[in-house]
Amino acid sequence: MKLYSYFRSSASYRVRIALNLKGLPYEYVPVHLVRDGGEHLAPAYRALNQDALLPTLIVGDDVVQQSLAIIEYLDETHPAPPLLPSTPVERAYVRSVALQVACEIHPVDNLRVLKYLKRTLGVDDAAKDAWYRHWIETGFSTLEAHLVAAGRTGTFCFGDTPTVADLCLIPQVFNAHRFNIDTTRYPTIHRINENALQHDAFARAAPGAQPDAE
Amino acid sequence: MKLYSYFRSSASYRVRIALNLKGLPYEYVPVHLVRDGGEHLAPAYRALNQDALLPTLIVGDDVVQQSLAIIEYLDETHPAPPLLPSTPVERAYVRSVALQVACEIHPVDNLRVLKYLKRTLGVDDAAKDAWYRHWIETGFSTLEAHLVAAGRTGTFCFGDTPTVADLCLIPQVFNAHRFNIDTTRYPTIHRINENALQHDAFARAAPGAQPDAE
Repeated sequence: MKLYSYFRSSASYRVRIALNLKGLPYEYVPVHLVRDGGEHLAPAYRALNQDALLPTLIVGDDVVQQSLAIIEYLDETHPAPPLLPSTPVERAYVRSVALQVACEIHPVDNLRVLKYLKRTLGVDDAAKDAWYRHWIETGFSTLEAHLVAAGRTGTFCFGDTPTVADLCLIPQVFNAHRFNIDTTRYPTIHRINENALQHDAFARAAPGAQPDAE
Repeated sequence: MKLYSYFRSSASYRVRIALNLKGLPYEYVPVHLVRDGGEHLAPAYRALNQDALLPTLIVGDDVVQQSLAIIEYLDETHPAPPLLPSTPVERAYVRSVALQVACEIHPVDNLRVLKYLKRTLGVDDAAKDAWYRHWIETGFSTLEAHLVAAGRTGTFCFGDTPTVADLCLIPQVFNAHRFNIDTTRYPTIHRINENALQHDAFARAAPGAQPDAE
């Protein structure tokens, strides 16, 4: 397997955790999002991924895109350990937590959105950073309420083993800390993150542990 | 089953198509996103859905949130007709198309994002509408390339039967048309939309066919 990744890309980070949890070795192919105007925008990468987004996973002749689709694919092709619970309603709950991060928080703070704010709308850096924090804080506030209301957390978002919910949450907490958000205001999220960082599969997937880390 | 929905909510529209395709009757509970400052923000709805987002599906005692999690849940609990192909790599492809809409286009144009642009950043209506169109046009342009490169379309995004990819795409095309985007520039997307609108399950799920349509 070959993973096109950028050390600080949240979506790549999610898939790296999945690969580590499954014990799957892979070749790491760095794609720099800033250098040379963005290596992801170059024709070579766009031939693989028309959306010019990271990550892309190559398995034999198969090209798999979109982090959540990649994670479901890995879970179907390498079922142990499972990244989703066993009953439909529990699976729906875990997926809903993952999607709260992947659909409601992360896309609005994506690099291309921040560029549009700055270049097209002329938003200054302070307002851009406030935007970034706003969507994480709004999202974490409701996600914390969701986790508490559901009462299903243990060491992780769902019980004591990692699921796709944690694969999405932990990279988002990393982003929050980069922007100096105090996550102790979200005690459940904060606790799950502290637990995950002790886990080898999460630690080895962290941005600072990647070959292209700066 | 009970679906909390708003006629013009894309995420609700996706789930309505799924319910129709599966032939599942449901009670429609309208939640108005504008009236009274937004009925979705009222405590009664937030007790069900802490994120204050539509839709929410109620099945017995189960509360299921996030449209893509709801659709996977319906596909697991009511497998016929399937909304995903049978092989992992084909499933990944279909999910990646769905996620290109659900993660890359739709969230950036969400109502709360548009409100932030206007109220907090002081963006005028013309620039706000240009933002809305920009993310659909950017997304449709890369999605069209993805669909063409994959070469898997038929009547629908994947062959001749609807999948979760179409459930996400068709509501997004509806939004594009609301903002006067000429979708003939994306011939594959345009063709699939034309086909879908002929399909009874899609037609009955359309915003104009809902009890709360204005």
